Amino acid sequence: MCLALSEIISESDDVLLYLDRKRTYLIKVEKGKTFHTHRGFVSFDDLIGKEYGTRVSSSLNVEFVVLKPTLQDYIFKIQRKTQIMYPKDIALILMFGNVGPGSQVVEAGTGAGALTTALAYHVRPDGHVYSYEVRSEFVEIAEKNLKRANLSDYVTVKNKDVTEGIDETEVDAVVLDLATPWLVIPHAYKALKRSGMLVSFSPTIDQVVKTVEALKESNFVDIETVECIMRAMQTERGKTRPQTLMTGHTGYITSARKALR
Amino acid sequence: MCLALSEIISESDDVLLYLDRKRTYLIKVEKGKTFHTHRGFVSFDDLIGKEYGTRVSSSLNVEFVVLKPTLQDYIFKIQRKTQIMYPKDIALILMFGNVGPGSQVVEAGTGAGALTTALAYHVRPDGHVYSYEVRSEFVEIAEKNLKRANLSDYVTVKNKDVTEGIDETEVDAVVLDLATPWLVIPHAYKALKRSGMLVSFSPTIDQVVKTVEALKESNFVDIETVECIMRAMQTERGKTRPQTLMTGHTGYITSARKALR
Amino acid sequence: MCLALSEIISESDDVLLYLDRKRTYLIKVEKGKTFHTHRGFVSFDDLIGKEYGTRVSSSLNVEFVVLKPTLQDYIFKIQRKTQIMYPKDIALILMFGNVGPGSQVVEAGTGAGALTTALAYHVRPDGHVYSYEVRSEFVEIAEKNLKRANLSDYVTVKNKDVTEGIDETEVDAVVLDLATPWLVIPHAYKALKRSGMLVSFSPTIDQVVKTVEALKESNFVDIETVECIMRAMQTERGKTRPQTLMTGHTGYITSARKALR
Amino acid sequence: MCLALSEIISESDDVLLYLDRKRTYLIKVEKGKTFHTHRGFVSFDDLIGKEYGTRVSSSLNVEFVVLKPTLQDYIFKIQRKTQIMYPKDIALILMFGNVGPGSQVVEAGTGAGALTTALAYHVRPDGHVYSYEVRSEFVEIAEKNLKRANLSDYVTVKNKDVTEGIDETEVDAVVLDLATPWLVIPHAYKALKRSGMLVSFSPTIDQVVKTVEALKESNFVDIETVECIMRAMQTERGKTRPQTLMTGHTGYITSARKALR
Repeated sequence: MCLALSEIISESDDVLLYLDRKRTYLIKVEKGKTFHTHRGFVSFDDLIGKEYGTRVSSSLNVEFVVLKPTLQDYIFKIQRKTQIMYPKDIALILMFGNVGPGSQVVEAGTGAGALTTALAYHVRPDGHVYSYEVRSEFVEIAEKNLKRANLSDYVTVKNKDVTEGIDETEVDAVVLDLATPWLVIPHAYKALKRSGMLVSFSPTIDQVVKTVEALKESNFVDIETVECIMRAMQTERGKTRPQTLMTGHTGYITSARKALR
Repeated sequence: MCLALSEIISESDDVLLYLDRKRTYLIKVEKGKTFHTHRGFVSFDDLIGKEYGTRVSSSLNVEFVVLKPTLQDYIFKIQRKTQIMYPKDIALILMFGNVGPGSQVVEAGTGAGALTTALAYHVRPDGHVYSYEVRSEFVEIAEKNLKRANLSDYVTVKNKDVTEGIDETEVDAVVLDLATPWLVIPHAYKALKRSGMLVSFSPTIDQVVKTVEALKESNFVDIETVECIMRAMQTERGKTRPQTLMTGHTGYITSARKALR
Repeated sequence: MCLALSEIISESDDVLLYLDRKRTYLIKVEKGKTFHTHRGFVSFDDLIGKEYGTRVSSSLNVEFVVLKPTLQDYIFKIQRKTQIMYPKDIALILMFGNVGPGSQVVEAGTGAGALTTALAYHVRPDGHVYSYEVRSEFVEIAEKNLKRANLSDYVTVKNKDVTEGIDETEVDAVVLDLATPWLVIPHAYKALKRSGMLVSFSPTIDQVVKTVEALKESNFVDIETVECIMRAMQTERGKTRPQTLMTGHTGYITSARKALR
Repeated sequence: MCLALSEIISESDDVLLYLDRKRTYLIKVEKGKTFHTHRGFVSFDDLIGKEYGTRVSSSLNVEFVVLKPTLQDYIFKIQRKTQIMYPKDIALILMFGNVGPGSQVVEAGTGAGALTTALAYHVRPDGHVYSYEVRSEFVEIAEKNLKRANLSDYVTVKNKDVTEGIDETEVDAVVLDLATPWLVIPHAYKALKRSGMLVSFSPTIDQVVKTVEALKESNFVDIETVECIMRAMQTERGKTRPQTLMTGHTGYITSARKALR
């Protein structure tokens, strides 16, 4: 996605058509075709050769901005189809997992690949993500999403049940987003480098309690669970206030570090 | 910091001595020396040649775990000396700014270099951070902190007033953490690539309102302001609950994208 | 409402038909009539003579519980038709205003009478509420709502513009829920007893800032602004978690006390 | 407390000496005596005969405002000595319990009497509070606190273990603030009127889960658990922001209504 050298829109590029914050469309540019919205259609031929950031008018004369897609745009695009993991949680998982360029990361489960996409984006160019997914239909979806974001080279999606074991060893971080993270903790301990990072995301408190207990049993230290409540502001001079509706809860993030016995 | 190839503790490595979540010490290993804590002293010679994750006993027979420092550890270490920017906010700034390997980023102001350290960690190995700081005493502090984290190669700290202009052009992101971000918006617009990202962090609502107004005037789109309220959980079977004390507010994060006029 | 001596459902009583938390109906019992819901109709004749708390079946054999309406039920019923003030905010306004049995209270504006209903409920039997409303259509609506809740005796609704002055003096509390509370502060100061309480509810930060400035100018002390973020829990063994969707913001509550100059 | 007819400060009145929001003193006026603060002493003889709201100077020439104590002031005064229940939670308990003038309420446990004081204040003049406390030393403390607030007539404190049963029947509300609320639910069901209200306050999630399960087993309906996160604002033109430090968690409030079987 973000590897493109060019700032000029070309055929088969992904672009984000932006009308307003609630109406954005991540689409692939195809010569001779058009994209239909409730505000009229946009001709791709009008985009090709233009610079990113440019404004185009639809057939109903509504103005769109043509933006270059970001990691967040890909995450939101992927999320729409499956369960929810928000960019705020992904951002914290990356931070707590110390994931950065060169990191070797094990992830489970893959799902549609939203978190995988973010991990892959950040381990480039020398790191790698090994992502476990037991449901074969999701393996395909995730691989397609990763390919679209141009990140397939950095990920190996494995159609395996991670609760039965992890093949990799000496990895820098293990990142869990599945229903029974506590079953994976002993495997994660073996897979991790000494002082390696474990991060687990779970919606319910019961999952958190079981995971923390498993972490303590497996000799992890520095165990911490947090939640991030994100609130958007409506900012306008004389009318500024937090927005009325918000997402009250997505999940808890538990992090820990491997210590030797 | 995280570039070390070895998993064996060596002279002049940074290590994190971990007693519990509230008592951790980021220190440099020096042959023949000792580190003093309220729980007795630890001899560095006991650490050299050991693996990370190992446990050592102090002179008072209190056990510490010797961990490999993470980005978060460096951030907290730097923060202790100056104003506060929490890892949660840094994580979101990275996400909203789409900062990743290869990104060219302008930052202002540098301060003690906490956010700079995080940016540098994530743009490796091919990106670069240009960080503006008007107060010369902070330039020195930041450079020292970056050197310690082994990230100097990825940052140019500039002792300049960013409200007077930005030297760079065609950058991927501009990240602002200073008292008057609105004065920098027109310069940021010029410095950014088309479709480039702007992120600004401010503690007060008044700063946010002025910044959002400046963004609208400067032709940015997709303007959004959020705050992240992070709450730690006390997790123990039968006693699980959110922690009593929390940080209620750090600051608002405003993000936007450059559109063409 | 809550003054009824009888625990037996009688003609023309208000009852709350309860299906689940999201589907409750506050209705008046009328002999020979029925109440229609999406789950079938309920015959009022089936209710008359029964005890509160009883269960009845609709024509589609769906079970409803017949509850005695509470203050909250009346508040929600009234709110559905107009702007929002939540029970959580009303509860805090009562607390910060020190409103209780015997209190003399001035309120503005009345709106549909939700807050008025709560004030009236709590000042009984010896207190009184003087409620100002400049829009005559709302005066009627509020009076109807108060009558239905059996609380008309404790309220005088006045079709007057409170920004032009308050008729009463020596009142215990002044409670404001209108667009320009700062214009009422000097009048409130005159109307209040020495050491009397002022409470103001406003959705936006700009309203709060202006109100706090007016309070300082008018010699109020102990000025405090808070917001209450209420989050519901989904409680079920093994699945417990905060609810996904929540109301992120309703308004800020500012309180102060009158000091002499 | 709030029953005083006079607005003139008299001997043996309680007054609130106010310096700023963090430094307030609830004290009894005693002729010929003085009150010592870090900002000098205040002579009670200077207060007697003055109006509430008046300003007095200490021996160090620091100005205090002499306010009439409110329910909140008494709650905070009582709380300082024992465990914490905040006015925000008390306010919501009153609302969810539908407690108002004339209510018959059972409470357990009494503790130092903070919630009891609030209940008594609001059931006046015709209601009554029956408060159970198993620890005899707290019975005395609570009775002293109630007497000071002039509310003894509205409360019967019982030195009994509420988990063994409730003596009263046909009460309007049962309010629980004790370690094992679930053990009291069957007794509460018997004590309540049909359609009566139950409210329980608990710091931990495990307590909530057990309580909700007991409520379901005992035929309560409309069961809801919430928490109120209260955040104070620092309001000053140009510097407005939520306060940095806040109380992140006090407890969860569960409410329910009695239905017939």
